[in-house]
This record gives sequence, structure tokens and C-alpha cells, in this order.
Amino acid sequence: MSFYNLINPKSYAVIGASTNPRSGSYRFIEALINNGYKGKIFPINPKIEELQGLKTYPSIESVNEPIDYVLIAVPADLVPEEVRKCVKINVKFIVIFTSGFGESGNKNLEEEIKTAIKGSNTRILGPNCIGVFSSESKIAYFSDQLILEEGNISFISQSGGLTRTLIWVGYTRDFHFRTAISLGNQIDITIEELIDFFLVDEKTDIIAAYIEGIKNGKEFYRILKKNNGKKPIIILKCGRSQSGKRAIRSHTGALASSDHLIESIMNQTNTILVQTFEELTDTILMVEKLRNDSLNGKNVAVINSGGGLSVELTDICESYGFNVIQLSPESVKELAEILPTVNTILSNPLDLGASGFDPEIFGKVINVISRDPKIDVILTVIEVERFSLLNKRYQTEDIGEIYVKNIYDNNVKNKPIVLISPKSWESVPNFIFYSNFQDALHRIKIPVFPSSESAIRALNKVIDYHLSLKK
Amino acid sequence: MSFYNLINPKSYAVIGASTNPRSGSYRFIEALINNGYKGKIFPINPKIEELQGLKTYPSIESVNEPIDYVLIAVPADLVPEEVRKCVKINVKFIVIFTSGFGESGNKNLEEEIKTAIKGSNTRILGPNCIGVFSSESKIAYFSDQLILEEGNISFISQSGGLTRTLIWVGYTRDFHFRTAISLGNQIDITIEELIDFFLVDEKTDIIAAYIEGIKNGKEFYRILKKNNGKKPIIILKCGRSQSGKRAIRSHTGALASSDHLIESIMNQTNTILVQTFEELTDTILMVEKLRNDSLNGKNVAVINSGGGLSVELTDICESYGFNVIQLSPESVKELAEILPTVNTILSNPLDLGASGFDPEIFGKVINVISRDPKIDVILTVIEVERFSLLNKRYQTEDIGEIYVKNIYDNNVKNKPIVLISPKSWESVPNFIFYSNFQDALHRIKIPVFPSSESAIRALNKVIDYHLSLKK
Repeated sequence: MSFYNLINPKSYAVIGASTNPRSGSYRFIEALINNGYKGKIFPINPKIEELQGLKTYPSIESVNEPIDYVLIAVPADLVPEEVRKCVKINVKFIVIFTSGFGESGNKNLEEEIKTAIKGSNTRILGPNCIGVFSSESKIAYFSDQLILEEGNISFISQSGGLTRTLIWVGYTRDFHFRTAISLGNQIDITIEELIDFFLVDEKTDIIAAYIEGIKNGKEFYRILKKNNGKKPIIILKCGRSQSGKRAIRSHTGALASSDHLIESIMNQTNTILVQTFEELTDTILMVEKLRNDSLNGKNVAVINSGGGLSVELTDICESYGFNVIQLSPESVKELAEILPTVNTILSNPLDLGASGFDPEIFGKVINVISRDPKIDVILTVIEVERFSLLNKRYQTEDIGEIYVKNIYDNNVKNKPIVLISPKSWESVPNFIFYSNFQDALHRIKIPVFPSSESAIRALNKVIDYHLSLKK
Repeated sequence: MSFYNLINPKSYAVIGASTNPRSGSYRFIEALINNGYKGKIFPINPKIEELQGLKTYPSIESVNEPIDYVLIAVPADLVPEEVRKCVKINVKFIVIFTSGFGESGNKNLEEEIKTAIKGSNTRILGPNCIGVFSSESKIAYFSDQLILEEGNISFISQSGGLTRTLIWVGYTRDFHFRTAISLGNQIDITIEELIDFFLVDEKTDIIAAYIEGIKNGKEFYRILKKNNGKKPIIILKCGRSQSGKRAIRSHTGALASSDHLIESIMNQTNTILVQTFEELTDTILMVEKLRNDSLNGKNVAVINSGGGLSVELTDICESYGFNVIQLSPESVKELAEILPTVNTILSNPLDLGASGFDPEIFGKVINVISRDPKIDVILTVIEVERFSLLNKRYQTEDIGEIYVKNIYDNNVKNKPIVLISPKSWESVPNFIFYSNFQDALHRIKIPVFPSSESAIRALNKVIDYHLSLKK
């Protein structure tokens, strides 16, 4: 079925709209106003006439207009009655923000709600969830979750807090969400239905999910198999440990699924499985920036100025099954014409010595490696701490921009490039250099990672995914 | 032997002091001046009379004063003659910055230098190294490597570039170096001698090293065994992979040592071994901040506001052998008096819900867990993105300081606390919140990590180290 109106509702009502600025209901409405939500907002509160500058309504029935999205924020025992009212006026989607249902042992209340919607067209998200974030419709989670940019990633999640953090990480790492959906206890709308919807949603390029447990393994498999990796799906599965499983029961009332089962479903359906939040963010970034590149294999060139971090990166590459192979003799010959003999090592890893800090020489090196037929991916390390000095030397405001231009112009064979830029000395000026440099690289689709391991672990996942698609 | 004058030289000469501001020799002298080096500086250059405001000398012999530290930066084939001159006037330490020796196949030049110092009191660091960084004597690597603070860590390294990056990381993560020594090709002064010296150096609390290969395994073992973990030693060993070993040969001319041998030496001597640069920085931070804590075991309490990241952290804890055990019944009873029933989970992981954003309630929770006899370490997650909102709510400038005060006052049993603060939305204000919050936490010896995995991996190493000491 279509969840278009769930992520693009023309109207948004809040039952239990509180006057307390600290309450969730208040902050949901505040977020709609601050971000310029495009539809109509109906706060429901019989005790007042106006809230945050909006006319309030005594009940959902008194609105007398079609309503796409109702957020319910009244105490748990009052929720079933409000759901019945919504069904009566044919509300499309109800999001139950209130917690204290199945996850606290109140299964009866959940049953009452399920009965209330039976046979109707009304669908329910939650309870115990924060509902929908939609960058297109300007719906955000609370007032601190600004919408900075419309995105192409749809995220479905069994944790609201983790979802909020992930959207924030995206602001920093330059991947952006079309929508995020917090599932809560999934008494009605399921993750399988939502994945199915986003598979055909044209504005979703990447689907990601945080999963604690799968209720319907067969359906989950069927949906993923239908896609079979065509649209990239990245899944963070937690609750592998015994204590993790215990935590999940209290968190969303879910039963953690067998990890072997999940893993085997992922493998059979070309779905990308990750294990930590950090890995999720690294993998989303890698998939997003390299999604139009041809990723043909694991032969990499490592380019750096200096030796130690190259050796470390090379070790990590090999431990993940990459080959830091010898460059072709033609490449070595060409490099010898560009680079001095002292303080450089014309091999793979390639040590540019101090010459690497000259953006023109760096560009020429990229040109050579870009044409080396043996190399599938270029890995390189650049530290922005040196930028303040280089800015002075090259009499420019922003040496990062110059680097990026030289890389872009010289990547003549459009080889995938991954850049590692250790965040080492984070003074405010370095922080700004870093952000600008990263933005410029991301614009030319070179993903930037803070450490060798974060880059290589994600690259490995993404290349395996690309290679399995070709089988 | 004592290397006191190597890290605290009363005089510093540079042979081959260039007038080119981009050259290494120029930038070494610039760094001495900028940082306020406490000794005398003698630039040696027969062609000029003054350099960077300093009187120059035509040759090292013409200085006519005792010299502790000479940096040689002339082309490789001229180095032996300069070494002979230094020996003649009884220079204590020579640092050969020039590269192009054993690492490029020029073993003969190295032999000539070794012959030159034979029988003398002159010792040589390098060649192919950047020498000494000393926060006490105000000697830095180049002009961009400011000395911000005197430190208690001594670092010995086979990579100059990696050393520079590590010092920068320390500025951000609040660990600081007493000294760093770049070894280069180790034709004379060896890593074993330096470790031996730092073991008795009272101002060195922690020794760390980056190693590509060990020349003298027996001596290495002897020194580490003598210490047997008394002073913490953390070693990053790279060159595990085939391509890594190849890179090492060109980098410092070293032969990579057998990884099994290194690992077995570490285990037998209570030395901490790490495999990546990121892990090195995390482990140094953990050792530094927790070095006065009693680390008795791996039973942890996980405290968070929200569920998803707790489940992830719990999984990671168990995968590293930690136990996220049930809290004692007394703790659960006390928590029930502090926390509301809705939206909280009074278990381990402990979900504080929105109450966790109240620093006073947070403090009370720390108080309870601090007294729980079953818990060895407290792990908690705080995101600074919420601070701007909380500052407003609590009408304060810096809610981070208030959190820290509440944590400190309530940690009544001085339980080790480790904090995970995901760097998610790094706007400039959030960056400043983050830095201030981290500084405040580090002042009360709570280390801060950007991700669950970085924290738990390092905690695991450090607790294993503490437990092995007790055996």
C-alpha cells in the first residue's frame, strides 16, 4: 500500500496538545511551525482556544476537515478512545507517541487499539514512537531537529533516539534523509510494508533501517528478495547479546530474532548488514557517495605524504581482503617524472613526501593512478592541520578547494576515490577547514572518513555488495 | 644511559640551516623561536650572518660552546663529514633529519656514520627522522606543531608523520606529551634504550610507541619484562600484512618482526598491544584518565536516555567480554524513587527517558549506581546536540558544566566512569559545547569517546592490563 500521505500529510493534528513547552506534543508542533510545514496544523485541546499562535479544537471530530496524520500524546489508558474517534472521521494515519503499552506489559491496551481500527482504512504507527520525519513536507522531530536539506535516504527504525542521532550525523557527514519513520511497537504498520513502499518510492535512493527483531521473517525475506539489492538497503541489527535481547523486550516489546536467520536473509538478498551505529553511518556515506561509480574489485592504491599512517592503512586493507598491489610499470615511470627521488617512495603505498602538500603535484599523481588499469579504488590521506600553513604558502584563502579542484580535474578515468582525513587537532579554525574541505570533496562524490578502519570496513561492505549484484 | 640532554638540551645547533622558509631546517628553528625554547640556538650556515634574527656560524666547530643537540639537514652524502666534525667537538646528540640512507639502499653511508662515532660519547638519532619533541624544553616539530601544554606521556616512533598527527590528536582529546622521539633508521640509538630511559624518568607516567620492526628481540623482551607493566606501555605495531612489510622496508629500512613473536612478548610482559592508530589514541586516553582508578572487573552499568543506542552499546560490551549484569535489588528500588515509571526502564541498560536530560536526576542516578557493589564501571551516553535546548530550559550558559558537577559530586564511591558522546551534529556552536563538555569531564578524569566501539575496545584493553597486574 502507499504510505505517501504518511510522509506527505496535507494536515497534521495533535491530540493532547500541551501548553507545557517541555512536553513532546508542544515540541512537535513547534517543529512544524519552525520548519515551515506545508500542510494544516490542528492542535486538539478542549481547555484552551489558541496554542503557539494556532487555533485549537476541543476534539478531533470538531476539526471537520479530512485529516491525514494524527499524533496522539494523551496518557496510555485514554488512547483507545481517541483512536476510535479518529476511525470514525476516517483519519488516514495515527501515530501514537504515548508509551506504556506492550513494552511495559500492557498488551491488553494494544489489543483494544487493534480492535478499534479493524475493518477501517485508518492505519497506526507505534505506539511508543516519534513517528515521521519528512524533509519534503518539513516535518521534524521536535524543535531541535532542524531540516537543513532534502535528502534521498529513507530510514525506518525501532528506536526514536537513535533516529534523531542519525539525522544529526547526516548533517555533519553530508548525507540527508528524505524521511525517517520511528516504528515503536509495530502493532499495525510493519517494517516490511514500509520497506516495500520505499522500494518503489522514486525519491528514495537508499533505504536504511535499525532493527531489533523481525516479527514476520517470511514476509521480510520476500520483500528483500524482490529487491535483491537493486535499491541499496542497509540494516543495522542489534540485540545480538543476551543482555541486548533483554533490553529489547523492555524497549519495544519485540522479541529479538535469531542472528543467524537475519544474516542468512541478508546474504541471500544482497542486503547490507552492519553491526554498530558507527558502521551504519560510515556505510550509508560510502553507498551514497559511490553509488554511481563502478566498483569492480579490491585492488587499491594507497597515496599519502609520510610513511606510518600508510603502513597502518595497508595493514587494515589487507585484513579486510583488499590488495595493495604493485602499480603498473608505466605508472611508476610517470611518477618518477613528477616526484623527486629524496623522501618519496614510488611504490604502493605511494609516499609523496613533502611533495604531497603541493596540490598541483598531488593532482598529477591522481592523474597517473587514475589511468593505472590495475587499480580499482584510490585511497588517500590528507590532514587539514597543515592547511593553515599551506594557505600562507600558496597565498590563498582555502587550499582545500584547490586540492579538490586538482583531484577532480585529474581523475580522468573517474576512478572511485576514498579520502581519510584524521580529525586530529580540532581547534575552531581547523574545524572550519575540515568542514569546508569535506563539503567540497562530497560535492565531487569523494567520501571522507575520520580513520582508516572506518573507511575500509565500509568500503569492504559496499564493494562486496556491488560485486554480488554482478554475479 | 641517560637521554636527559636529548630531551632537555641546553643548546640546539642546526647544520644546513636554510634561508628557505619552506625547508625543514628553517621550520625547526622557527618552531624553537615561536615556542620559546629555553636553550641557545646555533644556526650553522657559512653563507649568511643572520637567520630568523639569530647569529649564524660558518661551521659547528666555530660555535666554541658545548652543544647538546645538533640537527643535521645537509644532503645525505655530506652527512658523514658533518658527523665527524660533531664528534671532534664532543657534541652529545646528533639528530640526522636527512633521508636517503638505508631506507633507499645507501647502507654504506650509514656504515660511514657509525664508524665516525665509534669510541666517542656522541650518540645519533636517525637518520631519516624528525628527532625530538619536548614540551618541557619547548622543542616542537616544525612551526605548525605548537606546544599547548606540558604532558606526562613519552612517545617513541618509527614514523615522524604519525607522531605529528598523534600530538595533534592529543590536543583535541586532552592527553599531552612530555616528549616524542622519532627514531628513523635507528643506526645508533635504539627503541630499547629509550624505553629503558623512560621507565625511570619520573615525569613520564605512560610510555607509548609506534613500531614497524624490532631489531633486537631479546633486549626488547628484557626491558619490557623488567617493567612487567608497572609503568603502562602501549605499543602500536604495524606491518602485519605482506604489503605493509614491503612498505616498511622502504620507509625505515626495517625488517618487520614476526607478529606472533611481538604478541607473545607483549603478553608475557603486561604490555598493551594495539593494531590501529585510532585504537592507539583511544587506549592512551583510557589509560591516562583511569590510571588512578581501581579497575576490578568487567561488570558494567549502561546508562542512557533512550533505547536504541543502549542496545547497540550492550551488544558491543558483551562482544568484548563485559557483563551488562542486573543491578542489585537495592539499586532498582532506589531508582524507582527517583525516576517516573513511564518512558523509563529500571534495568541494565538503564533507560532514563526524558528524565536523563535533567542534570540533577542524572546525578542522583549516578549516586545510586556508584554505590551498587555489583558494578565495576559505569558507561553512559550524553549527546551535546540537546545542550542548546537544555541551556534555555535551565536558564544557564553551560549545562555541560552542571552535568559534570552533578556527576562528580554523586560519584560517591569513585567508580570509574566512561562517557560516550557521539559527535553527531557538528555545527560550530555544537563543536564548542562538545569541546567544553569534554574538557570539563576530562578534568574529573572521565574519558570521553565518540563511539561505543572506540570506548569498549579501549576499556577492554585497559581492564585486561589492570587485571593481569594483579595476578
